[in-house]
Amino acid sequence: MAEAKVLSGAGLRGQVAGQTALSTVGQAGAGLTYRGFDVRELAADAQFEEVAYLLLYGELPTQAQLADYQQKLRKLRDLPQALKEVLERIPADAHPMDVMRTGCSFLGNIEPEKDFSEQRDKTDRLLAAFPAIMCYWYRFSHDGQRINCVSEEPNLGGHFLHLLHGKKPSELHVKVMNVSLILYAEHEFNASTFTARVCASTLSDLYSCVTAAIGSLRGPLHGGANEAAMEMIERFSSPEEAVKGTLGMLERKDKIMGFGHAIYKDSDPRNEVIKGWSKKLADEVGDKVLFPVSEAIDKTMWEQKKLFPNADFYHASAYHFMGIPTKLFTPIFVCSRLTGWAAHVFEQRANNRIIRPSAEYTGVEQRKFVPIERR
Amino acid sequence: MAEAKVLSGAGLRGQVAGQTALSTVGQAGAGLTYRGFDVRELAADAQFEEVAYLLLYGELPTQAQLADYQQKLRKLRDLPQALKEVLERIPADAHPMDVMRTGCSFLGNIEPEKDFSEQRDKTDRLLAAFPAIMCYWYRFSHDGQRINCVSEEPNLGGHFLHLLHGKKPSELHVKVMNVSLILYAEHEFNASTFTARVCASTLSDLYSCVTAAIGSLRGPLHGGANEAAMEMIERFSSPEEAVKGTLGMLERKDKIMGFGHAIYKDSDPRNEVIKGWSKKLADEVGDKVLFPVSEAIDKTMWEQKKLFPNADFYHASAYHFMGIPTKLFTPIFVCSRLTGWAAHVFEQRANNRIIRPSAEYTGVEQRKFVPIERR
Repeated sequence: MAEAKVLSGAGLRGQVAGQTALSTVGQAGAGLTYRGFDVRELAADAQFEEVAYLLLYGELPTQAQLADYQQKLRKLRDLPQALKEVLERIPADAHPMDVMRTGCSFLGNIEPEKDFSEQRDKTDRLLAAFPAIMCYWYRFSHDGQRINCVSEEPNLGGHFLHLLHGKKPSELHVKVMNVSLILYAEHEFNASTFTARVCASTLSDLYSCVTAAIGSLRGPLHGGANEAAMEMIERFSSPEEAVKGTLGMLERKDKIMGFGHAIYKDSDPRNEVIKGWSKKLADEVGDKVLFPVSEAIDKTMWEQKKLFPNADFYHASAYHFMGIPTKLFTPIFVCSRLTGWAAHVFEQRANNRIIRPSAEYTGVEQRKFVPIERR
Repeated sequence: MAEAKVLSGAGLRGQVAGQTALSTVGQAGAGLTYRGFDVRELAADAQFEEVAYLLLYGELPTQAQLADYQQKLRKLRDLPQALKEVLERIPADAHPMDVMRTGCSFLGNIEPEKDFSEQRDKTDRLLAAFPAIMCYWYRFSHDGQRINCVSEEPNLGGHFLHLLHGKKPSELHVKVMNVSLILYAEHEFNASTFTARVCASTLSDLYSCVTAAIGSLRGPLHGGANEAAMEMIERFSSPEEAVKGTLGMLERKDKIMGFGHAIYKDSDPRNEVIKGWSKKLADEVGDKVLFPVSEAIDKTMWEQKKLFPNADFYHASAYHFMGIPTKLFTPIFVCSRLTGWAAHVFEQRANNRIIRPSAEYTGVEQRKFVPIERR
C-alpha cells in the first residue's frame, strides 16, 4: 500500500472531498447559493417546487414546467397499502426519524430503482410521498386515524400541513412552509449529504442513499437542532426569565442549540429570513411570549458570546406557531433536504470513484493467535 | 471560510480520514489483521463468535466468556411479531439487501438504542437476529413458509444454514460458515464502514449507522462481487469453455468480478483460505464442474492480466456447494461485517468529531433570480 497522507483536521474539516455544482456555503457576498442563486432571493419569491426543480433538473422551471411538475408530484402522493401497514406497526413513542428512515427503506423494496435512468422519477416519488409517510404514521399512532394521504394543495408544505391538521392551511402558513423548505433544501457537503455521496459511490440505489442520509440527519449534532431549540425556548415564560436562564446556561457551560455554525462565521443567511416569518406568525396568533423569549435569548447570546442564531433557531417558534408538533421538526428537514441529497447522488453517479479513504492504525502490534483452550 | 485544501485523489484514495485500532489492511508481513491477529490464523482455529467478541469487546474470549456470549446470542435470535409482519409484506422479487436494510431499520423503531451504553447489547441483538431477518423473508416469500426463527446451533453460520434449509447443517458446512464469516468481518475504512462512521459522527443511533452501511454494501462496486462471480462461473460447463470465455471477456474488456483489489497489490490473504475450503466442499459433493471452472478462470486471469482472485471469487462456489441461493450471498456479508461496522461506530463515538468535509465548487457564477412570470 502506498504511504497514506495524514490529514490535518479531524472530521475532514476544511478538506475537499469532491466537486459540486450545486451550492456554495459561506462565500463572500452570498452566504448560500443554490446553482448560483442567493437562497434569500429564492426564499422571497419562489415556491419550494421551483427550487426542487432547480436542484434536481438543473434550472428554474418556466410556468408551464412548474405546473407540470407540481401536477406530477400531486399524483405521486398516496402510499401503497403495504407501506401503510408497515407504518401502522410502528409505535407512537418511536423516534420520528426512525419512521422516515424505515418508510423510505421499505418503499425501496416495492418500488425499486431498477436503473439510474429512473433516478429523477424515484426522487420525485419520495418527495411527494414523504409528507404522507410522516403524517400517516403520526396520525395513526397518536390519534388512531387512518388519514387520507392525498390533498389538492399545490405545494408540498401546504400538503404536509393539510395531512397533519386535516384541513386546508392558511395562505400565510403555506408561504412560510415554502420558505422553510427552500432554506433547508441544500447545504453542500454536510454530514448527511456526504453520507449519501459515500453510499452513492458504491453505485447503490437511490433509496439506500436517502435512507443512509436520513440516518445521519437523525444525529443530534446534525438535524434536531430546531427541536432542541424549541425545548429550550419553551422553558421560559418571559424575556426576563429567558435572559436569566440563558446566562445561567452559559455559566454552567450547557450546550445551547440553534447558535453558531461550523462554516458561517458572522451570520447564517437563512436566519434573517425565517426570523422575519416567525415574527409574522407571532403577530398572527397574538403571541406575547415565545417570540419575545426567542429574541431575548438571541440578544443575550450575541452580547455574551458573539454567537448568532443559525437557520434552526427561529424555525422552532415558526413551526410551533403553525401547530407542528416538535417531534416532527427534523422529519420536515428530511422532506426538504431530500432534494439536495438526491442532486448530490446524481452528481456522484455522473463522475464516480468509490469513496474509500485510509485510516491511521493506532492498535496493538501484530500478535500470535492463542487457541481458546490455552487462553 | 478558510481556504480548503484540494485532495489529490478522487474518492479520498490514500487519504487518512481517521484513526482505527481495529485492523490493518495490506501491511507488509500480514495481509489483514484484526486487533493484531492475522485473519488466516483466526479463520483456521476460531469460531466466528470469538472474532465478533474480539472486535466488539476488544480481546479474544476465554472459554467461559465464549460460552456466555454464544448463550446470549442464542437467546436473541427470534424476531418480534411486528417485524415478521413487515417482512411478509416484502415481495419475493425484492433485492435481498433492501430486505436487510429495512429489517434493520424497522427493528430500530421497536427496540431503539436509548443511549450509547446500550451499543454492545444492540449490536449483539442485530448479530443474532440478522439470519432470521434474511431467512424469514426468503422462506416466506419464496416457499410460503413461516419458519421458526430459533435453533440450537451454537454458531451464527450454522444457525443461518439451519433456518435456510430447515435442518441441522453438517460439521463441514458449519466450519466453512465460521471461516467465511471471519474472513468478511472487518476491513478498515472500506466504503460501507466509512458510511457507518460518517453517520456515527452525527451521534446518530446504531441502527441508523448499520442501516446506512447496508445501503452502501448493496452497491455493485462494494458487496455483490461474489454474486457476480457466481453468475459468471455458472455460465461455463467445462474448464476449456471457461478459459475460452474468459479470454473473450478480456478481449471485449468486460468487467470480471472477483479479481484484484483496491488495496492489496499481489494477493488477497483471504483467498487462499476460502479457496481451500471450497475445494473440500467440491470434493464432498463430488463436483466436477464448478470448482475446475473456477480454477480455470483464476489461472487465465493470472496468465493474462496478473490479476489474483480476491476474497469473493472462491466464496461463490463455496456458498453454492452449501446450497445457498446466489441472491443471499451479499446478505451473509452483512451478517459478518456488522461486527466491523459496529466496532467502528464504537470507535468513532469514543473520539468523535462530525465528519463534514468541504467541496470544490464547479458550478455557475452567482446570478440574479428572475421571478417565474419573467422566465
